[in-house]
Parts: sequence; structure tokens; C-alpha cells
Amino acid sequence: MVQVILRIVTHPDSAKEMIHTLRSLMLPLQAAAGFIACRLYVDTECPEELCYVEEWQTSGQLDQQIRSSHYTRLLALMEEAAEPPSLRLNWVTDSKGLEYLETVRRVDR
Amino acid sequence: MVQVILRIVTHPDSAKEMIHTLRSLMLPLQAAAGFIACRLYVDTECPEELCYVEEWQTSGQLDQQIRSSHYTRLLALMEEAAEPPSLRLNWVTDSKGLEYLETVRRVDR
Repeated sequence: MVQVILRIVTHPDSAKEMIHTLRSLMLPLQAAAGFIACRLYVDTECPEELCYVEEWQTSGQLDQQIRSSHYTRLLALMEEAAEPPSLRLNWVTDSKGLEYLETVRRVDR
Repeated sequence: MVQVILRIVTHPDSAKEMIHTLRSLMLPLQAAAGFIACRLYVDTECPEELCYVEEWQTSGQLDQQIRSSHYTRLLALMEEAAEPPSLRLNWVTDSKGLEYLETVRRVDR
């Protein structure tokens, strides 16, 4: 799985507009090949800081998106940020759930 | 790097309290070995849905935290959620920045 994490600080008076635009970018993604999830968050400590997350099944499927108009619009949006945005792509090779916590805590006893 | 992603839906009247408690759990983490980052977000589509993220340098350093009172409190907090929370631990083996997008988009031309 590949994660895209974009953290973007908006101008205080354009936060709502940025949220609206990012949401409109998210909608068509759900029909794309390899799509897992897409979410948009606001930082609880700073209402101007947004965190936009995409998850894709494979690197190739993400690459297809990166070459599409979706990323052209996303990159254009990054230009409107109040500060240079932070973009990270993370390759996740293993994933576990609550059972991992239970195992680690049990070993300790 | 290991990521902990906890998505938790609060009762509408206790969202503020949950944010306050999670924030108080975040503060001492910054001094812990292997700490990279910790953030707390609110979903833009649902103000009752919180996303709590921790990032640790190694699996062993995360395990130390999992065995600590920090996770005892985090697990107790999960019991107070309005819906069964979602907890994922992701092992990230590769990470890239904006330059990856530029490379992929350049190859396409």
C-alpha cells in the first residue's frame, strides 16, 4: 500500500474554500483502480492546517494518478498554500491491528 | 518508521473532552526514545471523528510505548468511543517527497 500525506497550511480566510476544493478532488478518486481511501482532516491545534491523505493499493496505480489531471489540480492547489506544503509518500509493507498491541502487552507480563 | 493510526468516533457531547484527553497524552511522548511525531486531527466531513497519529523510528521503540502506561490510557480511552475504533499500525519501509511526483510526471511527457 502507498500513502500520500499532504499537509497544507491555508490562509485563515480561505480555509473553507480550500476544504471545499480538496473535497471536490476526492470524490472521483473512489472509482479509480487501486483506490483504498481518501480523507481530509483539520489539525485540532491549528484550524488552518489541513491534512489530506490518499491510500493506493500499488505504486503503479498511484503513478497513474500522479500523471493524471487529479494531481495537476492538487499541485496547483499547493501553490495557494500560506506556507510551503509538506508532501510525503510512504510505502507501507506491513500493517497490523489491535491484536498486535495485545500480543506485545501480553509478552510483557 | 512505524505509524499508529487510531480513528475514533466520539459521542457528540464529548468530542471536546476526548480531544483534550488525547492532547494530554501526546505531550509527554515528545521526550520518548524514537519519537518522530504525534498529531490529532478532526475529519472535515464529521466533527465527531478524530484521527490520532503517532510515528516512531523503530518497531522496538513503539513496543516500549505499547507496554507503557501511555497505551494503557490510550486503550482505556478507546472504550469511551461511540463506535468501535479503528487502530492500524503501518510499517513504512520507504518514504519520498515532492521529487517523486516530479519524476513520475516528467517520464510521462
